[in-house]
Amino acid sequence: MTMLDHGYHHDGSAHHVSTLDPEPGERVTVFLRTPPSQRSGVHVRTVRDGEPHFTEAVLDREADGELWWRADLTAHNPVTPYRFLLSGPGAGSGGGSGYRWLTAAGLSGHDLPDDTDFRLSTHPGPPAWAADAVVYEVFPDRFDRGRTDRDGAGPRPDWAVPCDWDDPVIGRGPETPHQLYGGDLDGVRARLDHIASLGADTLWLTPVFPARSNHRYNASAFDRTDPLLGGDAAYRALIDAVHERGWRILGDLTTNHCGDDHPWFTAARADQDSPERGMFWFADGGGTGDGPGYEAWMGVPSLPKLDWGSPALRRRMTDDPDAVVTRWLDFGLDGWRIDVANMTGRRGTADLTRATAARILRAMRREHPQSLLIAEHAHDASGDLDAGGWHGTMNYAGFTRPVWSWLRGPDTALEFLGLPVDVPRLPGELAAAAMRAFAARTSWRTLAHSWSILGSHDTARIRTVCGSAELAEVACGLMFTLPGTPVVYAGDEIGLRGSWGEDGRRPMPWHRPADWDLRTLAVHRALAALRRARPALSRGGLRMLHAGADSLTYLRELGTERLLVHAARAAHPPVRLPLPAGADPLYGGADPLPGTPGTPVELPSDGPAFHVWRLR
Amino acid sequence: MTMLDHGYHHDGSAHHVSTLDPEPGERVTVFLRTPPSQRSGVHVRTVRDGEPHFTEAVLDREADGELWWRADLTAHNPVTPYRFLLSGPGAGSGGGSGYRWLTAAGLSGHDLPDDTDFRLSTHPGPPAWAADAVVYEVFPDRFDRGRTDRDGAGPRPDWAVPCDWDDPVIGRGPETPHQLYGGDLDGVRARLDHIASLGADTLWLTPVFPARSNHRYNASAFDRTDPLLGGDAAYRALIDAVHERGWRILGDLTTNHCGDDHPWFTAARADQDSPERGMFWFADGGGTGDGPGYEAWMGVPSLPKLDWGSPALRRRMTDDPDAVVTRWLDFGLDGWRIDVANMTGRRGTADLTRATAARILRAMRREHPQSLLIAEHAHDASGDLDAGGWHGTMNYAGFTRPVWSWLRGPDTALEFLGLPVDVPRLPGELAAAAMRAFAARTSWRTLAHSWSILGSHDTARIRTVCGSAELAEVACGLMFTLPGTPVVYAGDEIGLRGSWGEDGRRPMPWHRPADWDLRTLAVHRALAALRRARPALSRGGLRMLHAGADSLTYLRELGTERLLVHAARAAHPPVRLPLPAGADPLYGGADPLPGTPGTPVELPSDGPAFHVWRLR
Repeated sequence: MTMLDHGYHHDGSAHHVSTLDPEPGERVTVFLRTPPSQRSGVHVRTVRDGEPHFTEAVLDREADGELWWRADLTAHNPVTPYRFLLSGPGAGSGGGSGYRWLTAAGLSGHDLPDDTDFRLSTHPGPPAWAADAVVYEVFPDRFDRGRTDRDGAGPRPDWAVPCDWDDPVIGRGPETPHQLYGGDLDGVRARLDHIASLGADTLWLTPVFPARSNHRYNASAFDRTDPLLGGDAAYRALIDAVHERGWRILGDLTTNHCGDDHPWFTAARADQDSPERGMFWFADGGGTGDGPGYEAWMGVPSLPKLDWGSPALRRRMTDDPDAVVTRWLDFGLDGWRIDVANMTGRRGTADLTRATAARILRAMRREHPQSLLIAEHAHDASGDLDAGGWHGTMNYAGFTRPVWSWLRGPDTALEFLGLPVDVPRLPGELAAAAMRAFAARTSWRTLAHSWSILGSHDTARIRTVCGSAELAEVACGLMFTLPGTPVVYAGDEIGLRGSWGEDGRRPMPWHRPADWDLRTLAVHRALAALRRARPALSRGGLRMLHAGADSLTYLRELGTERLLVHAARAAHPPVRLPLPAGADPLYGGADPLPGTPGTPVELPSDGPAFHVWRLR
Repeated sequence: MTMLDHGYHHDGSAHHVSTLDPEPGERVTVFLRTPPSQRSGVHVRTVRDGEPHFTEAVLDREADGELWWRADLTAHNPVTPYRFLLSGPGAGSGGGSGYRWLTAAGLSGHDLPDDTDFRLSTHPGPPAWAADAVVYEVFPDRFDRGRTDRDGAGPRPDWAVPCDWDDPVIGRGPETPHQLYGGDLDGVRARLDHIASLGADTLWLTPVFPARSNHRYNASAFDRTDPLLGGDAAYRALIDAVHERGWRILGDLTTNHCGDDHPWFTAARADQDSPERGMFWFADGGGTGDGPGYEAWMGVPSLPKLDWGSPALRRRMTDDPDAVVTRWLDFGLDGWRIDVANMTGRRGTADLTRATAARILRAMRREHPQSLLIAEHAHDASGDLDAGGWHGTMNYAGFTRPVWSWLRGPDTALEFLGLPVDVPRLPGELAAAAMRAFAARTSWRTLAHSWSILGSHDTARIRTVCGSAELAEVACGLMFTLPGTPVVYAGDEIGLRGSWGEDGRRPMPWHRPADWDLRTLAVHRALAALRRARPALSRGGLRMLHAGADSLTYLRELGTERLLVHAARAAHPPVRLPLPAGADPLYGGADPLPGTPGTPVELPSDGPAFHVWRLR
């Protein structure tokens, strides 16, 4: 069996790069691994101020039957692209002569554009804590009530359809955003032990600002916590409790829009001469002519779009002493998840997204140098990443959809965020190719800090996607062992169902233990513990060894730690690999693997199955 | 034989898009061709303000055994990306279920990033005349003497090594930039009939500013024509003569640097408080610490780098009434070729390249709305194109190198612009893949206005690259029949040789007709005439039908005109294609092809050969 990478490997991880956070002008050492046949002809190309430069790599060492080549680069520009040039006998491919390139997209026998080059970034990096974080997502209205019994009456604001905790969720219809179950922040605080048991150490709460909906993405204010959730005092108590455990907590901010009852918008709408008028896109000021008379998220009138070209908006959002972005970091948040980051700052000829992201991060770092900034982006965030703003994205494109496509149940209708077609069922080769296609267009640092989500409040539940707990375990295995920050959406750990976003926003059945899938819970606990125990899983390189229709096999490596992962969605033809050393099982219950100088080792071919070994 | 595109085709040409120059907000109709089996399930995805939107395409018509699907899009943003989603029975691939995407990179059975999406651009487009232009490049010192006999003494400035016209070129060494042969602008003017005989209608002269070198890329001034070339009067006469023929003429501007004897730089170096100081990057002002004490092109002290962050520079280059960029358009130029455009405006954290390109174009359009702006870029310009500046690039990456790789002689050492490896010899499949990889990352409009160069004053001569006139004819055929502006480097049309840039800067042997390759001259004349007679070659779509190791076969289509091109570097296995109609030979001397409902037609399998037919 030929390894997928033909024996050539580099990735931007600490296993192959001396630093992921170079200072401007810093020399960085990069390592390339090649087969022993590549005895010469290894160059690195960097692009400096727009012009390619070549450096000849030197042979650093030979280990486990492969060569390690070393080259020093300078992080000259904010993003310095680099790629390897392999020449000499046998380096050509596909019937050609000459050379091949190695980029983050793999080997190429022909010239190719720069966009899949590996890259060094001198932009401010994510905080150190984020590299090892495991995030737990809470949709507050559905998590737990702390201030009233779950079986009693909840709050009853005028817009709400009050619900008992066990009422069914109405996934579609006018009532959908108004069903109020009454979960609150005290309810979250009361469940920190549960979250701790999953190995999570970072809380992400969807918005907690006052709003006339259960999801609160239509904020009526950005300067206080919704009283229905317990107000600022309950938020204060939760944040303190989180910090007492040494954890972090992230807020959720709509930088693209606010609610139409937000005082900024009501002032803007009431008075054309108000200072707030320019913070929105009104039709009379170059805004949209159709729809509600102002630009709004997807044309929804209750969500007027903010104009980041407005100095008044920028002052209130990022620049003033009590600006929204910074005041909540001062209050205690450790970062933000940014809602529809892909649309923020974009409208017509205005494309301020990257500048806005950088502005937000600069403000955040002034207040809290160790804060994290993650962008929601559902298709392709790469154009906005590595640009001094977002530290990472919610990796729907490069993780969620490929995993779903590979592990989805065969009989499930499965929609995804506005696409007019179901999520397909794809073989592992294509799923791996999709993951790589997206990963190749960001720096490793950004990839590793993007969120590996199996689902969220906006999508189907992974248990429903997979159709079985066995396949959901494989999905969970991928989430905890691939590069990227694992994010557990509250309820996934006990197998909650849901066929689309709103359908999956089901209240946590704390009081119905029989509804808990305890096997799935154990899987989460074990995999999170494995990730925490093995730095190679959070900080190591990724070397894809084999992709078959029904199995994916890869190595995660950091220093002397080498972990072999084998994921199978079904029983499959035997996968045989040359292994430099024997391996001991860490997860999945398989036998140890023998070390095999010269003799490939056969991996278990049952499935669904998820295995991890540690190479000796 | 399966067609390369499996029957699915779209490109951004006028054959498939209602306008290549939409106004902001304009509705644009796009057409997709599919096999008859795709009876439903065709959507178009656009990205509007960062968010994907889907439109269902409607079946427009069935013609020649294929379906034409139609969809209307809005050119909402300056660049609006779009791609096709193909679903329904049989739409999946690679063992998967569900759908495929069609982007400019082709069909994909898995999700992929946006960077190969087709794209509409509302940025100011190239002038109408450029779509049909054939450019002729002149390196003035080596083209012809108009003011002195070629066999007499030329000018003798202090820096020069005066040469007689027949002296050999010294391709490497200290004398290389100083050999002065004394070609001048009157010499160019005297040869317009020759240029006309090639079908060219656009002159590009490398720099004509005064400079202490024969190449003049180290300008001593930007405000006058080198007296050695005849000064402003000779330039005036040449420009007028060009315009009398209805032709255009382009200048060559170093926006990245000037010569170290340019008064801007001498003033800046002499006086730290001079207004010019900030126009450069001195070490004491954040400039480089090593090297000459200021930033310079590739560290060469005679080429101090300009800082586009400097308001004083911008005034002198683009903003003042007599700014460099505009004064020469006022003088009569029809546009600029920009030297090292890839480096212009880039240094460390400063990345003003796109903004500078847009600034230059805005200034140009104020002076001359029909002017053209082309960027030199030797590796991957896609990041700087479609951004409101450069109309196109010198397509070394997406045309020159693939063509060289396919047609290079087997025994030639062949360097290219700083790469540490020879240009490889590649099969046609890889050459076509490289072309497509670069083409897929620009709009069609930009691709069509980029320069298809077989060589330039900076590279080897195509005749030397190919090693034979027969292969050079194939190269010439590709240049005149693929999308992109043909550019003939003076001397290529008579088979001048040269193994690298300076080596190829050989004086035109006007007086040695025995040294002219008349067959190559006839090839240029015939192919240029063909291109001028057939709008499909300049404005039509491109459908690659087959790529083999030794042959490339494609269609160029516009309206009812369909041209079939078959290029072969060697005799090759038969290529058989289903053709909807018979075809008459236009070039290459082959027989007519029969129309074959149901029966594939075999194309000539000899080679080297270049054939064009017109489908009836």
